[in-house]
Amino acid sequence: MSVTLGMILEARERLRGVAQRTALVPFKALSDDNTQVYLKTEGLQNTGSFKVRGAYIKIASLTPEERACGVIASSAGNHAQGVALAARTFGVPATIVMPAGAPLSKVMATRELGANVVLHGAVYDDAYAEACRLQRETGATFIHPFDDPMVIAGQGTIGLEIMDDLPDVRTIVVPIGGGGLASGVAAAVKMLHPNVRVVGVQASGAAGMKASLEAGHVVSLSGAKTIADGIAVKQPGELTFAMCRAYVDEVVTVDDDEIAQAILLLMERGKMVAEGAGAAPVAAIMNHKFDAAGKVAAVVSGGNIDVTMISRIIEKGLLRAGRVSKLRILMQDRPGQLEIVSRIIGSNGANVMAVHHDRTDVDLDIRDAILEITMETQDREHASHIIDALREAGFTVY
Amino acid sequence: MSVTLGMILEARERLRGVAQRTALVPFKALSDDNTQVYLKTEGLQNTGSFKVRGAYIKIASLTPEERACGVIASSAGNHAQGVALAARTFGVPATIVMPAGAPLSKVMATRELGANVVLHGAVYDDAYAEACRLQRETGATFIHPFDDPMVIAGQGTIGLEIMDDLPDVRTIVVPIGGGGLASGVAAAVKMLHPNVRVVGVQASGAAGMKASLEAGHVVSLSGAKTIADGIAVKQPGELTFAMCRAYVDEVVTVDDDEIAQAILLLMERGKMVAEGAGAAPVAAIMNHKFDAAGKVAAVVSGGNIDVTMISRIIEKGLLRAGRVSKLRILMQDRPGQLEIVSRIIGSNGANVMAVHHDRTDVDLDIRDAILEITMETQDREHASHIIDALREAGFTVY
Repeated sequence: MSVTLGMILEARERLRGVAQRTALVPFKALSDDNTQVYLKTEGLQNTGSFKVRGAYIKIASLTPEERACGVIASSAGNHAQGVALAARTFGVPATIVMPAGAPLSKVMATRELGANVVLHGAVYDDAYAEACRLQRETGATFIHPFDDPMVIAGQGTIGLEIMDDLPDVRTIVVPIGGGGLASGVAAAVKMLHPNVRVVGVQASGAAGMKASLEAGHVVSLSGAKTIADGIAVKQPGELTFAMCRAYVDEVVTVDDDEIAQAILLLMERGKMVAEGAGAAPVAAIMNHKFDAAGKVAAVVSGGNIDVTMISRIIEKGLLRAGRVSKLRILMQDRPGQLEIVSRIIGSNGANVMAVHHDRTDVDLDIRDAILEITMETQDREHASHIIDALREAGFTVY
Repeated sequence: MSVTLGMILEARERLRGVAQRTALVPFKALSDDNTQVYLKTEGLQNTGSFKVRGAYIKIASLTPEERACGVIASSAGNHAQGVALAARTFGVPATIVMPAGAPLSKVMATRELGANVVLHGAVYDDAYAEACRLQRETGATFIHPFDDPMVIAGQGTIGLEIMDDLPDVRTIVVPIGGGGLASGVAAAVKMLHPNVRVVGVQASGAAGMKASLEAGHVVSLSGAKTIADGIAVKQPGELTFAMCRAYVDEVVTVDDDEIAQAILLLMERGKMVAEGAGAAPVAAIMNHKFDAAGKVAAVVSGGNIDVTMISRIIEKGLLRAGRVSKLRILMQDRPGQLEIVSRIIGSNGANVMAVHHDRTDVDLDIRDAILEITMETQDREHASHIIDALREAGFTVY
């Protein structure tokens, strides 16, 4: 069974009042005379990602008998919440198997949506095996996260919404993990407007769809390593592979650093919280991975990212931009030295955040010490200026 | 001159294609059977805040002669960018006076919008005085950040949009600093739907409008201290005072801790970046500062917050929720002790983030040491469990 335009149009009707019709907002930070970027804000979707669309359409397609037996899924992330919410909407019992190490926040969110959460195994594959066992035991319907025509039709509604809001869009950029979102969006767009380009973006550490397209058949990677856990998939589906081959014009990759910078740009300039998978299309535009002339719509597929990860991304990003600087200063271990250093830094307009003083480094002369200073600066130039001032005052700065 | 419904309706027509008609999205995290919360996402507005609405309507009202002389404003924040963008749209020269210590990111953003940025003085009042001097010298029109009928009419369009999207809203909650946003929204809503309640929210350290309403006349505070810099205003305007007295049902206050928790909730559950002022209405709902039964629309007025502030809010929020825990462990300073502590923490599922070891505390016995450990935990209960395990193993834990 394949996915028809009629199925996607029908999915749109069914989703009215159930899923948010998320806004498409201009993103000035990456726009210029040549390129105008728009963001499809699926982070603002119910459950914080697009997954509820496909899960709802799948459950809507079940017979009353099938619904009575319940649904089952395995997921450590967005699919879990999407299935739980969709099942609750239909009053269908849902069992979600998650690996035992899944973030507590995601376990709690899935339980809050009324699902029976089973924690099993250490990694996703263990959870998947347990879900299959439970499926055979209970007769519940297994809801695949991507390789299912109904799920794909549901995700395809995003393509219809973008075309409605931006009829003269030239390129639509979507993240690819298993390929469900890309298959649905690309099918909807190409069947209606074959001249609109669809670009897929994979994490370079989990580029199974790209490898499969290049090989001409489905390829399974030995591992999937990326901060974008929503697209950390080792192997695309048979159906999604066939659909991406038919409808996606180009697949590009972005690495973890590029994804982290895109997450930071979306926060600072787009005022939105995006998870790694959601930021991947923006990373591809930022790094000129494809020809982005004209109007470009990037699907920010979700916003479910841990706040501790956000903190780490901010810190790393500030260091990279010279907005936080770390100095190591060699100085003689005698009174008054710290005062002089503090005065030079303060009078040059920087703000000291942390100080660490060490006399025990084996490479140091017995009378010397190392002072480690972390300070807020305006940019790299500002930091250089302060280093110069410290050197003029006689300090050795690393 | 006062603000009529016709002026606000006219402002809506003028703003089509200029300002975003921002989405109103449901916010499940604060909704239950009794209360349904919706967020007006003005952080996704051009320049990241609602300010462009009022600035544009004001400049649109100027004569060709006035426009030729340019406009001038003083601001350390959102008003600067709002005026700069609005002026550029009309091809009107704009001068923005900012205090010399304004964040570099805001100076850069205002310059990128084509304004002539003058850095003057240490605080806002100095910048304001310089702007007045320049205004007299150049004959440019001063664009007041809030106490101007045209500016207020522009902000009022937010009220019309909320009523269009959610006709059965019972309460609209808006932040109040100078009172321009609250005056416009409340006027629009009350003139059309007098039964809809309008609640204003001030920072407890800058509650000049609340003090003024209680006094029955405009009161000037001696200072304005809050993390919500967008509403850190010492004195409301004469017009905004009169309008808030006429149209706002209730004014409540929230403190900095409540605002910080609301910023974190909006990031984690709403997937949006809100500045302090924008999060204040959500803080008021979270802390039951007013009767929020029925449908409530909270105006998240902007998202211009420094990422270093976001980092600090995340860290503080995680500590508070027990998701990061800091332990001080007294132990004998001999080999193998750190290994035992690490093993106990690891086998209980926590993740060590930082370790600090100190033998130099004056209160310590010569053979003892203090180990400071920062670790990621699931919640307070999880942290207590680990502390118990350490105590059972013979360690003294603070």
